[in-house]
Formats: sequence, structure tokens, C-alpha cells
Amino acid sequence: MRKIYNFSAGPAVLPEEVLQQAREEMLDWHGSGMSVMEMSHRGKEFTSIADKAESALRELANIPANYKVLFLQGGASSQFAMVPMNLLGKKGKADYVNTGQWSAKAISEARNYGSVHIAASSENEGFNAAPPLEQWRISPDTVYVHYTPNETIGGVEFQWTPDLSAAPGNHDNIPLVADMSSNFLSRPFDVSKFGLIYAGAQKNVGPAGLVVVIIREDLLDIAPLAGTPTMYRYKTHADNVSMYNTPPTYAIYIMGLVMEWLKKQGGLAVIEQRNIAKAKLIYDLIDTSSFYHCPVNPADRSRMNVPFTLSKPGLDDAFLKQAQAHGLIQLKGHRSVGGMRASIYNAMSLEGVQTLVTCMREFEKNHA
Amino acid sequence: MRKIYNFSAGPAVLPEEVLQQAREEMLDWHGSGMSVMEMSHRGKEFTSIADKAESALRELANIPANYKVLFLQGGASSQFAMVPMNLLGKKGKADYVNTGQWSAKAISEARNYGSVHIAASSENEGFNAAPPLEQWRISPDTVYVHYTPNETIGGVEFQWTPDLSAAPGNHDNIPLVADMSSNFLSRPFDVSKFGLIYAGAQKNVGPAGLVVVIIREDLLDIAPLAGTPTMYRYKTHADNVSMYNTPPTYAIYIMGLVMEWLKKQGGLAVIEQRNIAKAKLIYDLIDTSSFYHCPVNPADRSRMNVPFTLSKPGLDDAFLKQAQAHGLIQLKGHRSVGGMRASIYNAMSLEGVQTLVTCMREFEKNHA
Repeated sequence: MRKIYNFSAGPAVLPEEVLQQAREEMLDWHGSGMSVMEMSHRGKEFTSIADKAESALRELANIPANYKVLFLQGGASSQFAMVPMNLLGKKGKADYVNTGQWSAKAISEARNYGSVHIAASSENEGFNAAPPLEQWRISPDTVYVHYTPNETIGGVEFQWTPDLSAAPGNHDNIPLVADMSSNFLSRPFDVSKFGLIYAGAQKNVGPAGLVVVIIREDLLDIAPLAGTPTMYRYKTHADNVSMYNTPPTYAIYIMGLVMEWLKKQGGLAVIEQRNIAKAKLIYDLIDTSSFYHCPVNPADRSRMNVPFTLSKPGLDDAFLKQAQAHGLIQLKGHRSVGGMRASIYNAMSLEGVQTLVTCMREFEKNHA
Repeated sequence: MRKIYNFSAGPAVLPEEVLQQAREEMLDWHGSGMSVMEMSHRGKEFTSIADKAESALRELANIPANYKVLFLQGGASSQFAMVPMNLLGKKGKADYVNTGQWSAKAISEARNYGSVHIAASSENEGFNAAPPLEQWRISPDTVYVHYTPNETIGGVEFQWTPDLSAAPGNHDNIPLVADMSSNFLSRPFDVSKFGLIYAGAQKNVGPAGLVVVIIREDLLDIAPLAGTPTMYRYKTHADNVSMYNTPPTYAIYIMGLVMEWLKKQGGLAVIEQRNIAKAKLIYDLIDTSSFYHCPVNPADRSRMNVPFTLSKPGLDDAFLKQAQAHGLIQLKGHRSVGGMRASIYNAMSLEGVQTLVTCMREFEKNHA
């Protein structure tokens, strides 16, 4: 067992069993004599690895047959452009929900390609809440609605999947697009409610350098905007089973190991219960203490990223130092927010969170 | 020692020492308690890894201070669009040299963004030669000249760096752009002769999912075409030391280990001599045999990718089977060419090539 607990927001902690298996197979995958890094992406060894990773993901997330799974590169930041370039089509108008820094980035990039309407925003609440569906004002001529189910920096998470047909107005057939990077596979979710989901791998899925896209097949029929690079067209990758060019093979391999680990844990429903329990430990401490503070509306608090501040100024460095002494690392808050942030993705153990909570109590006792 | 020799064209064999070190450090890099895959890309541990990888590359390739090194994603296939989107500017015209399938892909993508003039082509020679500089016809109004120093599929390699000022016409200040994916760091090269070099990592540098770009700083001042995604702008990455978003951290780490390995070998001049010796072993056998054939013009034969055919039809499967029995794998030629291809990048040992040559001789004796 390792002696540290890594609360990094991403790249983030991976299951120890996954790293151990990767270590064992580093020089010789299944008697092939090759490291996975050395395999031709078109050879039978690697295609079996990629197929298995996709099958396990499909099983875990119960992905319907009319959705393609794509293994792409360039992170969510590339998706911010790929989504509008591929989906805006002739109508050229999309709705976005603005809940913080990551949705703002998606909005800013989309504006380069068409008309963006902000359907809802939590800006007036300091980006500390998820706007309720009855406040959404969706344009009648929008081609999709984009939102960010979990804001990694702000620590705001939608605890519900928007049902656009229930929003004010008539929007029965508008595809919902989600940047699920930081809560992907942390709980069950109904893929059929979405047109397109994307998720950078480096939170709950695997190493950086891989972004998973789940796209409903009919959306592949929209003609991309003129000037969309071949590598930025979803159809390029869908038509070539993510092998139009060399995919990030080792990241896909690690993702496959993480999927097997998730299945062994009991799948997404079991992981969700564990994530609820982990988050509750920290939020309960914060809410019963006058020393720690979390600015996020309690109903919209993230199970993945817990930002918190210390009530007394100037203690941050001392807190980080004590945490480090307990083996608790990467707790410093995002540079734009300050304070602390505990990212507690699937691979963070309950024991790690308990150790953090013990450390927080001890620090409070000594400094309150 | 491993018992197989992997001749894959890419992803390709890596130095065994590199894989061993990656295995040892998999769960705990330098006492940090983290795998490199788990490190925040903005933390001091990973930034030291990325800085060291860049420094080692700069030292090995003697990269002048007025060139930026970028660690990007999306492979050479993304560069096929990024180069014209970033460099075409208002003039909108570029020259390309067509020497086979990879240059053809670069040309096809560039045509989406501007006017492409074919300065030289080996199409009439069946793409089996490198067009000599005196045949190049460079447009007077071109903004750059693009070529492919090594065609991975055709096995054609330029043994010289084009000096555009010596080509017919007056082209003293035209930037030379090179897709160096498959011979990058296999020999010394003078970076100052290029405006921009790009190389997919999965041949001589590391795992798939990383593409290295070396760009002369003044080229960052050209305004990209309207509609160029933020992630497709070189300036985005140059201004953020390749950390605008999360880079492919593990691939950069492995690249750093490969750079250290290259330095330990004695650098590019030493590696070049080894690569010359390896290639000579196979080409000498082919040229003294009537059983094996290589279609490439002898002066332009690749030291990295050796395509060859067997003179008798129907023996390919038997050859591959015998090779496999000798531990020689991934020798099947590209699906568009047929026959065999031995890719013998930096990490392929002389012993591996000797074993291949012995196997080829034995097969010829039994089947000629």
C-alpha cells in the first residue's frame, strides 16, 4: 500500500491495482514480448485492448447501440471547438448554460463559430449554484444545449440531468451536450438523455491525453462547418473506429484497466454510494465547523471536487504543511479561487478522506 | 533481456532500459508517492519532468534559442491542418513536395485552407525516389515549402536537407516545414535550416499521443486563419509552455527517458552511425540476392523503414511464420504496399537486425 493520499484535481489518483497491473505488464503484455506502448495500433493485440476498453465502458454506462464511442486527443479544450464546428450546421445557433470557469471556456470558444445564447447562468450567485431548470430560457432556434455537469474549479455539480422537454418552451428534440470531464463514471447516468457527452480522461478514467466522446449516431450526419480540420470531424473518427490515425494507445490501455477495476467494484451504482459517503464526510465537517467554509449552495455541491476555505487568514500554508505530514497532498485550491480543494474521484479511498477529515479536525483544534 | 524483436512501423520498439525505469517508477516517482500519470501537470514534480525532457531534446538536437519546442496532441495528422491554418496568412499559398502517402495526406489537408503548389513530385517514379533539389519549382509567392524527410510507408528518405536558396529561383527566406515523424532524432540535423519541424512521438521518441513541434519564433507572429480553433494555434501553446490545457503527461515523461537514453548512447552522431550500420546489413543482403527486392532508388533508401518483397509469389505468410519463430515480429508490409517492411528505429538493436538478416538468408536458402 502507498502511504500518500493524492487529492489532485487532474491528472488525478488512479486505482493502485491498475498501476500494479500496468507495472507488471510494462515490458511484456500477455506474453506478446511487447509493452503496450510498442504495439502497432492496427495489430491484433492492441485492437483487442481497445475493443475491450470500449465494451467495458459500454457495459458500465449502459450505452445504447445508436451511440458511438470515440477515443480522441486534445482534451475537453479541443471539444470546446469540435462541438460547435460539428453540430452548429446551417442554423448556427447554440444555447449554453454558464456555471463557472469551464462552461465559460466552452462558451468563449463556441462564439468563434456561431451565435451563442446563454440559456441560464449562475453568475449572479457567484457561480456557486446550478441554475434550476425552470430558470432556463432556451432559444426556439437553438441546435443544441451545452452544460457542464460538474465544475472542477468551482465545485458545483448538477445532481440532476436536465430534461429539456420540461424546461420552459418547447424543446423536445434538442440534443443535450455535456462536458462530463470531472464527474464521468462517478455515478449512473442515462446516456439516452444526451446527444453528445465528452470527458477528458485524467479525472476518473485514466491518464491525460485521451478524451472520450459518446455521440448519438444521427448527429454524425450534420455537415461540419467549412474549414473544420479532418481530425476535428467526429465522422472521421466514427468511420475509422478511432483509428483514422494513431490513437493514444497507452492511455486507452490504462482506461481499459480502470474500466475493469470499476466493474470489479460493482459498477457505477456502487461507486456512487461510495462517492456520496466520501463527500458527506467532508461536507458534514465543514457544516458543523465555524472554522471551515464552503461557498457552494448545499444542494449543488460537487461529490468530486470539494473547495473550502479557512476562516482565519494566513493559515493556508500551515494547513498544507500539516496535511503533507499526514501524507495528504495536492490540496491547494485552484489559483483563481485560493483556499483548499479536495478532489475525491472514484480512485480516492474512503480511508484517504477519513485521514483528511481527521487532519482537518486536528488543525481546527490547534488553530481555532 | 526480452526475446523478441519488434519491427513495427509505429508505435514502435522502445529502449528496454526506458521501459524498465518506467516500470520501477510506476507507483512512486522519485519518492513522491505518485505515479507520473497521477501528477498535476502544474505541480513542481511534473513541471520538472517536462522541463528536463525539453532541455534534453534541445541539447541533443542543438535547438537554437529562437525556436520554441511544443508538446502537442493529435499526431502529424493534426499538423497537416495546423501548419496551413497558422502559416498561410494573407498570401494563402504554399508549396509542397510530394514523395508518397504521407506527403499526399499533408497536401490534401492543406488544400482545404489555401492554394497548394506541388514544387516537386516523385509520382512518375512510382514514389520511389527523393526529387533532387534542381528539379524543385518553388512558387515565387509561396509562404512556406513543406516536405516529408522520410516516407514511412514507401521507405524513401532524403539524405540531404533542402537548401531552398540553392533551388531554381530566388527563395532565400522561405521557411522550410518538415514532417519529420519517422526519422526525427535518428541523425543530426540543423534546426536552423527549418522554419517548423513536427514529429509524431511513436517512432523514435516515445508513446503515441504526443507530437513534438519545433517552431521558429517569428512564425508565431503570423495571424492564423479565421476559424482556427484555440487548440490549433501554435501561439496558444507557445505562450503557455505547452500547458494551456493538460498535456499528455505520461507520454512526455517517457519521451524524457528516451532523451536521457539517447544522450547515454552518445547523442545523434553516434545513433546515426548505428542506424547506418543496421540499414546497410539489410540493404546489402537485398542487393546481393535475387530473392529479395527493394523498389526504392538506392540513394534515397530509408534508414528507418526498409520495405522489401519476395521474388516468388505466395511466400509472404511462410516468411512471416518463420520470422515469428525467430522472435521477429511486426514485419508485414503496409496494407497499401504488401510484402515486408522492417522498421529499424533508434531503439532497434544491431542484434535484432542481425537476427533478421540471418532469418532472411535461411528463408532464401530454403525457398529460392
